[in-house]
Amino acid sequence: MNRHDLINTIRDKRSFLCIGLDPDWSKIPEHVKALPDPIFEFNRQIIEATHDLCVAYKPNLAFFEAQGPSGLESFKKTLECIPKGILTIADAKRGDIGNTASLYAKSFFEFYGCDAITVNPYMGKDSVTPFLEYANHWTILLALTSNGGASDFQLKDTEGQMLYERVIETSMQWGTEDNLMYVVGATKASMLQAIRKQIPNHFLLVPGVGAQGGSLSEVAKYGMNKDCGLLVNASRSILFASNGLDFAAKARAEAIRMQTEMSALLAAGGVL
Amino acid sequence: MNRHDLINTIRDKRSFLCIGLDPDWSKIPEHVKALPDPIFEFNRQIIEATHDLCVAYKPNLAFFEAQGPSGLESFKKTLECIPKGILTIADAKRGDIGNTASLYAKSFFEFYGCDAITVNPYMGKDSVTPFLEYANHWTILLALTSNGGASDFQLKDTEGQMLYERVIETSMQWGTEDNLMYVVGATKASMLQAIRKQIPNHFLLVPGVGAQGGSLSEVAKYGMNKDCGLLVNASRSILFASNGLDFAAKARAEAIRMQTEMSALLAAGGVL
Repeated sequence: MNRHDLINTIRDKRSFLCIGLDPDWSKIPEHVKALPDPIFEFNRQIIEATHDLCVAYKPNLAFFEAQGPSGLESFKKTLECIPKGILTIADAKRGDIGNTASLYAKSFFEFYGCDAITVNPYMGKDSVTPFLEYANHWTILLALTSNGGASDFQLKDTEGQMLYERVIETSMQWGTEDNLMYVVGATKASMLQAIRKQIPNHFLLVPGVGAQGGSLSEVAKYGMNKDCGLLVNASRSILFASNGLDFAAKARAEAIRMQTEMSALLAAGGVL
Repeated sequence: MNRHDLINTIRDKRSFLCIGLDPDWSKIPEHVKALPDPIFEFNRQIIEATHDLCVAYKPNLAFFEAQGPSGLESFKKTLECIPKGILTIADAKRGDIGNTASLYAKSFFEFYGCDAITVNPYMGKDSVTPFLEYANHWTILLALTSNGGASDFQLKDTEGQMLYERVIETSMQWGTEDNLMYVVGATKASMLQAIRKQIPNHFLLVPGVGAQGGSLSEVAKYGMNKDCGLLVNASRSILFASNGLDFAAKARAEAIRMQTEMSALLAAGGVL
């Protein structure tokens, strides 16, 4: 999916919601666990209940890999049941040297057919550029993450700028606004203002809203640009809004709540 | 495998060779590709030909994931045919927030039964400690990698020390010499001297010898300690020493060449 189509989808759906598909086995409703391939079935019902409200799905590989090889079958089936026109992001946080990165790119972009993948910047340029070589696909680089450990290295001063700022400044030379996005955690929403000065046009993938406590209005205030420029992710707050028979309906209700707030923010921000 | 057993294995085998199992489809001999599960069969023959000469095997997940879910079956079968007493390292370079990191740890340490995993430090403490909670297992943190991109961030001055030095200094508080190792590329062998001052006792996993051009004697000169403290990895130079019917025999010959050199270096270093 290219940038033009992504922006149009945001305007059409009046939403910049990304739903994180983190099918945590310990939280999947018991009645779903009784069905064949519960991981897939849980995702399928979530997707069926929410696909008109979001513009992206972001399955996190850890939840699939934890099931062994069969979990990757569930991953593939999950991707296949996401309707066309919705961005699919493999939250894999891969990062390896050149020829190995190429294999990861091939796996996620070709075999699984994802539109985008999250990538770790620690190993530098040749670990990132193999992903950027795919037209109409996205590399989403970790910049400032939403976990406590982000302060260990990402917030350290690195020759005059924080490491995450250096990651952005250096990597923006490797790709363009059309194939490169950044992960910026909502728990540091005030930092979005400085990031927007640095990269006014790039899309930002923002986790940490919802269960992790970040504020959607703060994110929009500091991070929204004329094209929206934001994908705000929610996982647990939607997926596990209920653990009963009504889990999909409750997931839809929470997605509607977020989409409604997003619609107002898009209008206020002049995107609509 | 604990530290005591690893050191004893190094002394018994007079080797600190780690063989990287990177079954690159484009380089697997044609006659192996005609067999069922060629990825596994290639690894099996390499392991059969080399297991008395090395102390560790390091399969890189990218080469298995590139085959889709069936590649993970090949990965599991590969691990199962590695003889007991040899360290198994999942070269996965994972790194994610706490609960997700726990799932990766469970997957690699419990489901696949690996002794060790490589981990990316960018997301900080809570992305690393879930791996360290497993007794008799190892977390191998990327510090200074052997690729060109290492200079983009790892070699930047970060509040008075290079980022990779800060990664080591900070993370050595999270684990111990008994559960934490570091990746230090052989292409920067001279930097091993400074790293040894910083961490005299930790094991270092050293890629980049062989096809990537690093020198084994330089690595030993700067990096060896009284327990050896080194695992030197070779992948392509062993796996693809020949692409004919004699590939396993040629792999063995190259492994013997390295083990012979390592034996002399261990004796000269006072480890034997």
